[in-house]
Amino acid sequence: MRLRNIPGAKETLQQHPAIMIQNPTQHKGKWNQLFNNDHPIYVEVGTGKGKFLVGMSKLYPDINFIGVEKYESVLVRALEHVNEQDQPNLKFLNEDVNDILTFFDVGEIDRFFINFTDPWPKNRHEKRRLTYKGFLTMYEQLLKKGGEVHFKTDNQGLFEYSLESFSGYGMSLHNVSLDLHRSGMKNNVKTEYEEKFSKKGMRIYRCEAKFKTGS
Amino acid sequence: MRLRNIPGAKETLQQHPAIMIQNPTQHKGKWNQLFNNDHPIYVEVGTGKGKFLVGMSKLYPDINFIGVEKYESVLVRALEHVNEQDQPNLKFLNEDVNDILTFFDVGEIDRFFINFTDPWPKNRHEKRRLTYKGFLTMYEQLLKKGGEVHFKTDNQGLFEYSLESFSGYGMSLHNVSLDLHRSGMKNNVKTEYEEKFSKKGMRIYRCEAKFKTGS
Repeated sequence: MRLRNIPGAKETLQQHPAIMIQNPTQHKGKWNQLFNNDHPIYVEVGTGKGKFLVGMSKLYPDINFIGVEKYESVLVRALEHVNEQDQPNLKFLNEDVNDILTFFDVGEIDRFFINFTDPWPKNRHEKRRLTYKGFLTMYEQLLKKGGEVHFKTDNQGLFEYSLESFSGYGMSLHNVSLDLHRSGMKNNVKTEYEEKFSKKGMRIYRCEAKFKTGS
Repeated sequence: MRLRNIPGAKETLQQHPAIMIQNPTQHKGKWNQLFNNDHPIYVEVGTGKGKFLVGMSKLYPDINFIGVEKYESVLVRALEHVNEQDQPNLKFLNEDVNDILTFFDVGEIDRFFINFTDPWPKNRHEKRRLTYKGFLTMYEQLLKKGGEVHFKTDNQGLFEYSLESFSGYGMSLHNVSLDLHRSGMKNNVKTEYEEKFSKKGMRIYRCEAKFKTGS
């Protein structure tokens, strides 16, 4: 997911405060005020260049979308796809997913998306995978009761691991697809990675995981 | 899974009472007496021609194996692979899986295997799939605490369904493999179907599912 460093990326993000939210902790528990409505809030962790969330925010204007991406050199590319005036339901945070409890409140989120994140294939890096139980604990706290995690990847190993991690946490799996682009799923918004890998003929894996409980 | 009807198949099975167990209800709760040891009991439901269980029983002489197969014209083929004298740890039942509660007792089984069973792809036939929750309830009753269900199939739709069914029942998934023959798994005993489908280049899916509780 790392791109080469883009000089001035951080400054560029700061020049678009309406969509690139600075100091997100000040909105904790009050994101609906920022969006100026009571619509559900869907969060993508590791949002990359933002293509998925830009597409989703156009397709579902009555949902608020927030993308969290640590690398400014990646996130700055989202500005190429987005028209700030036309998408009041879309915000990005240049933040580390490890810190999400500091800028979202308990039960404030309706859904998480995890798309094509770093598989961290080495066992000793397990804790960095965004489907590791440590992250699931955070998602669970932030989600409303019955909240879901929607997960897509091209990485077979990460998908196998994640099925084990979700079910081991007591989550139920729904709409599992082991070959998404031949599954007939409608309204699937593709990420940059998804288009690239799919064109190479690689399978895309997808599932929805639901917490037994929730806030 | 259905073969053409083989005339006299039932009679042939009856001629091998040491391995083709007649009236299994009389052994309910007493299977270890029949095996004449206290070894764990592993049961394969829908055992087909028995190739998997014959291979397993040779590989693990300290485990007792029982295969359940409804169709006598299929099960009769198991006799081609087996040497009754050499495999005292292997038995077959020409019975319907729906009746397993009548011939096994609560907590009597250590593991279930489900291999390449009929996918019953139509929604209205869901209840016939051997990974449907109705069957999981039966397996759970019969398994010792911590007992597992080991599942293999070439059928993508059945595997997707089964992941949902297992996790929806509260089971945790382990050793999930979305391409078994390229996973490096050791001691994998292939079924007849598995060899056939694998040679065609098709993926084999496998997982282990564990009940949270058990008898």
